Amino acid sequence: MSILIISGTNRANSVSQKIAKLYQSKLKTLNTDSEILNLSNLPKDFIFSALYENGGKHPEFNPLREKVMKYQKFVFIVAEYNGSFPGVLKAFIDGLKYPDSFKSKKAALVGLSSGVQGGALALSHLTDILSYLGTNVLGERVKIYRIEENFKNDELINKTFDQLLDAQVKNFVEF
Amino acid sequence: MSILIISGTNRANSVSQKIAKLYQSKLKTLNTDSEILNLSNLPKDFIFSALYENGGKHPEFNPLREKVMKYQKFVFIVAEYNGSFPGVLKAFIDGLKYPDSFKSKKAALVGLSSGVQGGALALSHLTDILSYLGTNVLGERVKIYRIEENFKNDELINKTFDQLLDAQVKNFVEF
Amino acid sequence: MSILIISGTNRANSVSQKIAKLYQSKLKTLNTDSEILNLSNLPKDFIFSALYENGGKHPEFNPLREKVMKYQKFVFIVAEYNGSFPGVLKAFIDGLKYPDSFKSKKAALVGLSSGVQGGALALSHLTDILSYLGTNVLGERVKIYRIEENFKNDELINKTFDQLLDAQVKNFVEF
Amino acid sequence: MSILIISGTNRANSVSQKIAKLYQSKLKTLNTDSEILNLSNLPKDFIFSALYENGGKHPEFNPLREKVMKYQKFVFIVAEYNGSFPGVLKAFIDGLKYPDSFKSKKAALVGLSSGVQGGALALSHLTDILSYLGTNVLGERVKIYRIEENFKNDELINKTFDQLLDAQVKNFVEF
Repeated sequence: MSILIISGTNRANSVSQKIAKLYQSKLKTLNTDSEILNLSNLPKDFIFSALYENGGKHPEFNPLREKVMKYQKFVFIVAEYNGSFPGVLKAFIDGLKYPDSFKSKKAALVGLSSGVQGGALALSHLTDILSYLGTNVLGERVKIYRIEENFKNDELINKTFDQLLDAQVKNFVEF
Repeated sequence: MSILIISGTNRANSVSQKIAKLYQSKLKTLNTDSEILNLSNLPKDFIFSALYENGGKHPEFNPLREKVMKYQKFVFIVAEYNGSFPGVLKAFIDGLKYPDSFKSKKAALVGLSSGVQGGALALSHLTDILSYLGTNVLGERVKIYRIEENFKNDELINKTFDQLLDAQVKNFVEF
Repeated sequence: MSILIISGTNRANSVSQKIAKLYQSKLKTLNTDSEILNLSNLPKDFIFSALYENGGKHPEFNPLREKVMKYQKFVFIVAEYNGSFPGVLKAFIDGLKYPDSFKSKKAALVGLSSGVQGGALALSHLTDILSYLGTNVLGERVKIYRIEENFKNDELINKTFDQLLDAQVKNFVEF
Repeated sequence: MSILIISGTNRANSVSQKIAKLYQSKLKTLNTDSEILNLSNLPKDFIFSALYENGGKHPEFNPLREKVMKYQKFVFIVAEYNGSFPGVLKAFIDGLKYPDSFKSKKAALVGLSSGVQGGALALSHLTDILSYLGTNVLGERVKIYRIEENFKNDELINKTFDQLLDAQVKNFVEF
């Protein structure tokens, strides 16, 4: 069993990507393989060239579609933008194959924010979408707020968040 | 393993209670025991006498608290009132022991409505609450709309809904 | 014009009630009258005796129903319980007359929490309900987190929150 | 006063665009000018070239940013994709100037769906985002379900939806 970690923004050098790597290292400690899908690697014009009537026809986007279909477990790293998830994350989901991508699969959610919400609404919205798609979402959501203060030099210096993440990782492996 | 089905309203002779019984019979077909907790059996003044500083002190409410604590799996039958779940359902949850009642347990949700929503927002709100409490909610939510047309004489005469319910029951038993 | 402030919990000596009084004093500064409806004054068994088939028949609950119907503007003070609003608040709404109570009226929301969310999900859920009822909700929601630290001796000692509340009060009077 | 109608998908020949035009004609009946912003006219790679560090630097995206800033009232036509709004709509919002684009402005929401939800969750999520941005959202949301049956030849042949839309248009002009 291997897990796909979706780094849910296309911002360059994002904190999401750094948290994705941290998550991967924590999974490795539990002998669990994982792969990171960084949305900053999506084709630049995918939102026009890989959705709707172009769904499934894009030579660069298709391998990502296939990747999602073969995994059974997903971790979403979700930065809070404008009170919800980044638009690119939903656009990516809009380009995936329905219903094979997420139906009866499993997901864990991690929220990140500069402010104090930790992406609470972002994770709520994403849970609605995943539930609509038939994915079982781990109840335990980790919401890391004030990310600039609490995460430095690729490390969660706030140890409470580090422990919450450890607990989620363990529970998700067993989920 | 046995499942607690929460009939989520205190309205007398509610459709929720009838759907709860239907759910129970479907579980039985899969050799799965269940018990129904009908919120119409709550103490009449529990919202004042069994919450907050009175939490855990009410001789009639306490057995219900204990009941919730001993179960690992819950089905919530949720009628849509005023665009969400019935207030009594949340008030009941507010009277339960935290975090032992729902943490790391499992839940499946069924929504009912007179209109066309099937309790979509009610189930979304309840999922937020259960996620907050650390419950793993089955992604597959069944939303039975136009309940008066589709459910008659204790039967889901709309066979699509009956099949959706069968599928959820099966998946929840295996969840 | 006068405003009805709903202190949204029935917990005795609640912080919600104290914030309701603070809100009232701020409204007074702007020459705006208001009245506080404290849910701790609801009939103890209203959830059974004043809803559904008993709607509109309860001699003590009816005056509260009438009160809501005559107001055009509402402030909801909403403490976060179990990741959402208190169940009693929704149960109260379930006992009101539909659709005359809130249709085409106006509301402002204030969230309170011990943790860092400030009731973000509680206010989201309540907005859904009020939107369903046709109420125009002021976009500007004030979310006061870590209420025990930030509110002492009937005062918002965290001046940022006090200013956010002042701004909301002003904008709601003009809304 | 003029209103900006945002046709919230980039799908070619979308129903959203047709409903946007219908909305515009209804506004005209009330002597209210409006302009339609069709997201299918966004630069193909805007999600990479006009957001984050590129915010405000894109020669084709910037005029759209400016357009949003000058309007005070917005109508969002929101098709339901995957249980929420189209990702492109949120990505568009992510590229706008904060907080000048929506703060203290007004919005009305129309949901469209092939199924029976009428975009209920999509509109709930969008309301959260707009509330976060400080926009006052008209409580009255119109949710047009089974759009293929109910909208034909550029007309809402289901007259109930047509009347609901008329009522919203009138109330939004006065909002």
